[in-house]
Amino acid sequence: MIDTEDEDRTRTRSEEPADDIYAENGSVRADFLALVGAAIADRDILFLRQHVARLHESELGDLLEAIQPEQRLALVRLLGADFDLTALTEVDEAIRLEIVEQMPNEQIAAAIGELDSDDAVYILEDLDKDDREEILAQLPFTERVRLRRALDYPEQSAGRRMQTEFVAVPPFWTVGQTIDYMREEDELPESFTQIFVIDPTFKLLGIVDLDRILRTKRQIRIESIMRETNYPIPAEMDQEEAAQIFEQYDLLSAAVVDDNGRLVGVLTIDDVVDVIQEEAEEDFMRLGGVGDEELSDSLAETSRSRVPWLAVNLVTAFLAASVIGIFDATIEKIVALAVLMPIVAGMGGNAGSQTMTVTVRALATRSIDIHNAARIIRREAGVGLLNGVLFGLLIGVVAGLWFQDANIGGIIAAAMLINMIAAALAGIMIPLVLDRIGADPAVSSAVFVTAVTDVIGFFAFLGLATWWFAAV
Amino acid sequence: MIDTEDEDRTRTRSEEPADDIYAENGSVRADFLALVGAAIADRDILFLRQHVARLHESELGDLLEAIQPEQRLALVRLLGADFDLTALTEVDEAIRLEIVEQMPNEQIAAAIGELDSDDAVYILEDLDKDDREEILAQLPFTERVRLRRALDYPEQSAGRRMQTEFVAVPPFWTVGQTIDYMREEDELPESFTQIFVIDPTFKLLGIVDLDRILRTKRQIRIESIMRETNYPIPAEMDQEEAAQIFEQYDLLSAAVVDDNGRLVGVLTIDDVVDVIQEEAEEDFMRLGGVGDEELSDSLAETSRSRVPWLAVNLVTAFLAASVIGIFDATIEKIVALAVLMPIVAGMGGNAGSQTMTVTVRALATRSIDIHNAARIIRREAGVGLLNGVLFGLLIGVVAGLWFQDANIGGIIAAAMLINMIAAALAGIMIPLVLDRIGADPAVSSAVFVTAVTDVIGFFAFLGLATWWFAAV
Repeated sequence: MIDTEDEDRTRTRSEEPADDIYAENGSVRADFLALVGAAIADRDILFLRQHVARLHESELGDLLEAIQPEQRLALVRLLGADFDLTALTEVDEAIRLEIVEQMPNEQIAAAIGELDSDDAVYILEDLDKDDREEILAQLPFTERVRLRRALDYPEQSAGRRMQTEFVAVPPFWTVGQTIDYMREEDELPESFTQIFVIDPTFKLLGIVDLDRILRTKRQIRIESIMRETNYPIPAEMDQEEAAQIFEQYDLLSAAVVDDNGRLVGVLTIDDVVDVIQEEAEEDFMRLGGVGDEELSDSLAETSRSRVPWLAVNLVTAFLAASVIGIFDATIEKIVALAVLMPIVAGMGGNAGSQTMTVTVRALATRSIDIHNAARIIRREAGVGLLNGVLFGLLIGVVAGLWFQDANIGGIIAAAMLINMIAAALAGIMIPLVLDRIGADPAVSSAVFVTAVTDVIGFFAFLGLATWWFAAV
Repeated sequence: MIDTEDEDRTRTRSEEPADDIYAENGSVRADFLALVGAAIADRDILFLRQHVARLHESELGDLLEAIQPEQRLALVRLLGADFDLTALTEVDEAIRLEIVEQMPNEQIAAAIGELDSDDAVYILEDLDKDDREEILAQLPFTERVRLRRALDYPEQSAGRRMQTEFVAVPPFWTVGQTIDYMREEDELPESFTQIFVIDPTFKLLGIVDLDRILRTKRQIRIESIMRETNYPIPAEMDQEEAAQIFEQYDLLSAAVVDDNGRLVGVLTIDDVVDVIQEEAEEDFMRLGGVGDEELSDSLAETSRSRVPWLAVNLVTAFLAASVIGIFDATIEKIVALAVLMPIVAGMGGNAGSQTMTVTVRALATRSIDIHNAARIIRREAGVGLLNGVLFGLLIGVVAGLWFQDANIGGIIAAAMLINMIAAALAGIMIPLVLDRIGADPAVSSAVFVTAVTDVIGFFAFLGLATWWFAAV
């Protein structure tokens, strides 16, 4: 795609950028950014073609993210047909949309034709319907049909992520015929690691890995070396589920089939790696209460995306405050309680988060289930008891010395123990229950766990104190 | 490896287990577990050979995790030579060690010989030195040398994860010679997707993907179709760094070279996927304050692993408490302050976690750097200001109405605003600084961020109240 004309290689900038565009810390090198920025300002197309167009798609993507927002579109325009659209699959959604929406549909259509279908779908699926239709209309018939079919599958399904280019042969061919076919055929996928065996209706019969073909004598028939596809992926399957199959069975690629078992595409490990990354990131972000925010989001978008979570926390914060309110008479008499009560609630909150983190992760990797749930609940309750005794004693002694009052030391120790056990149970039971009723435990667990440890922490500490000092 | 004798297939158990050992929710089916449990109790080797030995290594791994601890060793013993040791690469470390330590070294040595070198290293590296040497001594010479070399590389390096079996040919061979060689040679790796081109000293010259060989005519020379290896992985490179190269350049496998550029092995995407998963999991767990705990850890191990984090939190909790202690006279006069103060600290803590989560993730994926840090810090400060105004007003009105006191409403609103801005700045600056000084931001950020939001939250609220009510 990139055609650097050797005879044109007259240097316009004295420094030659080094091969590696990354600095030690993994970010794009500042001197390279400066060179690119200057080249964009000078409209130095020659430099950009030689040093930017030759970059790997993911390097170009990183470059697009690193330069100033106003330089992005200028760079794309200057590169023209030399701009590798695949780079857009490597950048934040906001940046991708910003660039694609400004590009003329004709240029997108021309570039889309060069892409593998999975990359093309990745870019097309974010466009609004009108632009998408206009671009599709400019593509050759077979290309258009293929992309339409992939786009018809639900978002985040295997059908959306699959590549529709693949090599398929009939079972009665010999290895020799197959090799000859691959040597003659021009329209092969850019790269592939296995070929598929199909009947005339495209029904999937088997798979042959390329190394198997290379080890086998020419006259052997394909059907005798093909292996059954144990894990064909239905096109409607959620991409996360498909990724789990890849991981479990160490697949490099897998056939994607429609409802009738007909081969419609191939899902490859590189797309699956992206899915695995995205899912891990999603869980991570959700547990932190930040949804699917991206680094390139604007101030207003960021603020808006964080409000719901903060609002829910506000409700539980007032709930905890109202628990304190019950005991205001006691606090008025013994101010030490107000000083110490955040310790009980805070330590419980931390212990609860620990248990919750382990549980949410175990649910995501499916390593917790009915067989071991009981054992893990027992273990967590035990950990809560053990750490509750340990930290209860510690805090009790420190608090008792601080306020020179053994009563307060004893009360906070007991409250600590109660809250640590409550934290352990909340940390494991809440994600389990949320998962069971079909809610995403990563999204909603934290708020409930903190609510429980705050309410129980304040109630146990202040309640015990009220009862004890009323009793003595 | 598994040799099911068809003539022996007399059923001893009436129900035939279905093909899929997993239930809907992804855990191992209870009825299958019951059948396996009964077969272990009855020492029904036939059943185990037919239905357990035939499982995929990852299925066998899941089964080992799901059965009772005391059944595990019994199952391994009953399967004997039919036990696929690879399954041990799929289970928790604690379970792997428990099984391997009980297996006779002779049985391990015999089974290790059947494994790919990367799986063999994975199992050997956890054993103590004596056992490891005893097992290695029983292996054939070349096998032993290969494994020793891999084990000599640092833990978690590419050299540890690489496979030492690969196909390498000289550059002057033709495609035809190469194919003929692969057809004749018995000692090829179990599966491969590319072959390497080397000089007589094993120096890496290039790589040829199998699909390229298949598309090329027999008489063409390998050197004319090989491509340069842009991304050879030094054997000493950290596995995480190697994984990032795989991800960035969508590699399926990569050559691993020693200090002199000599080919020593090949790193494949399936191992890299595991590394990616582990790293994502590590960050997730660290942020939750639970280190590298595993689900199979004992109560005591779990308790111990969580104590350090709780202890650090205890220190910051007392710090926050001592801030409250400064204002005990004010609280004694106005108990409403004690009731409301956790709201200010808690909301700040949540806002801080949100910013911190985004920052830690961005650092892990290297998407934050000096070029965009300033922009993101400005954005976060803006988000803190915006959400501070929003939630300050909201809380101010509710608190003012609750306690029928406009002063308290105004004070909490102002404190809220201050703490939200502090939370935003702490949430982004603390991970950035930790990363800059070489600490892992995932491990230590949360405790510092909460300390800041607690201290500033209490200080701002109680300090403003003290000043205001002294002033009026």
